[in-house]
Amino acid sequence: MSYKKLINDPFDAVDEALEGFVSAHADIVALAEPRVVVRRKPGTGKVGLVVGGGSGHEPAFAGYVGTGMADAAACGNIFASPPPHVVLAATHAANHGRGVLQGYGNYAGDVMNFGLAAQMASSEGIDVREIQVTDDVASAPMHEASKRRGIAGDIIVFKCAGAAAEQGLSLAEVERVAIKSNAATRSMGVALSACEVPGSGRPTFELADGDMEIGMGVHGEPGIKRGPLQPADEVARTLVDAIVRDIPDRGGGDIAVLVNGLGATAYLDQYIVYRAARRALEAAGLRVVRSYVGEFITSLEMAGVSVTVTLLDNELLSFLDTPARTARFIA
Amino acid sequence: MSYKKLINDPFDAVDEALEGFVSAHADIVALAEPRVVVRRKPGTGKVGLVVGGGSGHEPAFAGYVGTGMADAAACGNIFASPPPHVVLAATHAANHGRGVLQGYGNYAGDVMNFGLAAQMASSEGIDVREIQVTDDVASAPMHEASKRRGIAGDIIVFKCAGAAAEQGLSLAEVERVAIKSNAATRSMGVALSACEVPGSGRPTFELADGDMEIGMGVHGEPGIKRGPLQPADEVARTLVDAIVRDIPDRGGGDIAVLVNGLGATAYLDQYIVYRAARRALEAAGLRVVRSYVGEFITSLEMAGVSVTVTLLDNELLSFLDTPARTARFIA
Repeated sequence: MSYKKLINDPFDAVDEALEGFVSAHADIVALAEPRVVVRRKPGTGKVGLVVGGGSGHEPAFAGYVGTGMADAAACGNIFASPPPHVVLAATHAANHGRGVLQGYGNYAGDVMNFGLAAQMASSEGIDVREIQVTDDVASAPMHEASKRRGIAGDIIVFKCAGAAAEQGLSLAEVERVAIKSNAATRSMGVALSACEVPGSGRPTFELADGDMEIGMGVHGEPGIKRGPLQPADEVARTLVDAIVRDIPDRGGGDIAVLVNGLGATAYLDQYIVYRAARRALEAAGLRVVRSYVGEFITSLEMAGVSVTVTLLDNELLSFLDTPARTARFIA
Repeated sequence: MSYKKLINDPFDAVDEALEGFVSAHADIVALAEPRVVVRRKPGTGKVGLVVGGGSGHEPAFAGYVGTGMADAAACGNIFASPPPHVVLAATHAANHGRGVLQGYGNYAGDVMNFGLAAQMASSEGIDVREIQVTDDVASAPMHEASKRRGIAGDIIVFKCAGAAAEQGLSLAEVERVAIKSNAATRSMGVALSACEVPGSGRPTFELADGDMEIGMGVHGEPGIKRGPLQPADEVARTLVDAIVRDIPDRGGGDIAVLVNGLGATAYLDQYIVYRAARRALEAAGLRVVRSYVGEFITSLEMAGVSVTVTLLDNELLSFLDTPARTARFIA
């Protein structure tokens, strides 16, 4: 099958989409320079939050720039980390004199490029910290949790850290909130189809008719199990079981659930998965107190979903509920 | 190719999705009875707005129930109008003594079922009016505009009428605003792929590899031109040209633009189409003052987009900007 796209020259896709994005949401965002999306009205006297990563995951990451979340997003090519000078420019834009936290998913390219940009910014006297989101339980075992990839848990971490920054907390405190919310967050996904990087002329991977792959990453990284597509209830239970097994201490048992569509999966299906995931989580003794359903971090036109669970205490809950106004996340 | 779905028994898909929907958004909505979604906190002393139609178009229609938009949504089977008793139940739920406006797309089944429900409600003494949205310029020529289908223009009409109702206007005034916003609104779409009604085992239509169909309806109704997929800029120009040709009087030239993803099309593509549509509209002398991009009324996992243009005066603009808080539309 072919992946039909509404694009022009594949080489221009990211920049054209960003041009469209900032003109559609000009009340919230602006383009500071190519690939750097910033708040229309910069924050002042607060810690800056820079987020970013490869493009092709829209509405991540530019969709989370705005009051209560990120100050700037650094955008790479499709499924490729933004280069250090782009991250550095985003860091400059986000710097209001109280330091900058860089938040991104734990991928080798991002770790390298954000790390280099952090070094450059530090050498200029900007206090920079980094948080690598590691929510994907399918990507490494529990005893190697720091090696895990970041997927839709990004949104929870950016929301909590962004709220902390907006409330005027110090860089050390914002970093603490980011670390805490990441540690409280676990995700797992399932892919039903591949997607195609514009211009590549081929899908990111092959998946047989009728098959699904549990644990596949948002760039087509191999998952943990491939097999015939199961009913939604069973798929949700598989994802939830893996997530729940990975939670060493349930605290008070209150959780936020986020069901993330990967691109081509209908809302109808997303809500059916949400229903099943919620039932499975409740059957495990957890209590769902906040819910998010929709396309938060996609993989172009990939079909599939991921489920994210965050253990909440009063502090994290209050950060989730802190008002935010971005192009694609409003609280 | 197969359409892989994350559902259980196809027969249960609509009800399971609605159960998920109301539990995910329990702060905003509740299920009054099967297939009838209402506001968690009912409005009082205001005109009621009932919206609805077939399922499979999520987030339409339940996603637009909430403060500032609809009071209740009547949901049918996939791509099938809700039966009269469901519409009547939604009308009862929305009735706060000042009358009820029923808003829906202009499809034969909806016209019949909402019409019957309106008659039943009237016989009970409820003052009911109906607005049939007719924004799809591809579905009938200008001199037969009242025969046109309703597509993403629904959202604009529901938003304006809902704002008017929330502001306490009379039923006659809310109806006037609905008629006015519908008359000011035009849309056209393009399909790149079909979708599959759960359980049907076959796509809604056949579209050759590499082809697109301009003007196709959200249930696979035939469009006006089929041919090889063109670059996004050209597709957007085709849609915008047809829309602009259909506008007899441009008024002040201020417009709202809504780019609607039909289901499988990536945000990346949606924003590229938005960029192109905006450029084409500006080249035609129109001024884009409000923009909406995303999946507003889908066709399950169909690939494609539609472009909607609404001519604005100060009144319609103020209704668009009136605060609204629904599960899927926040203003």
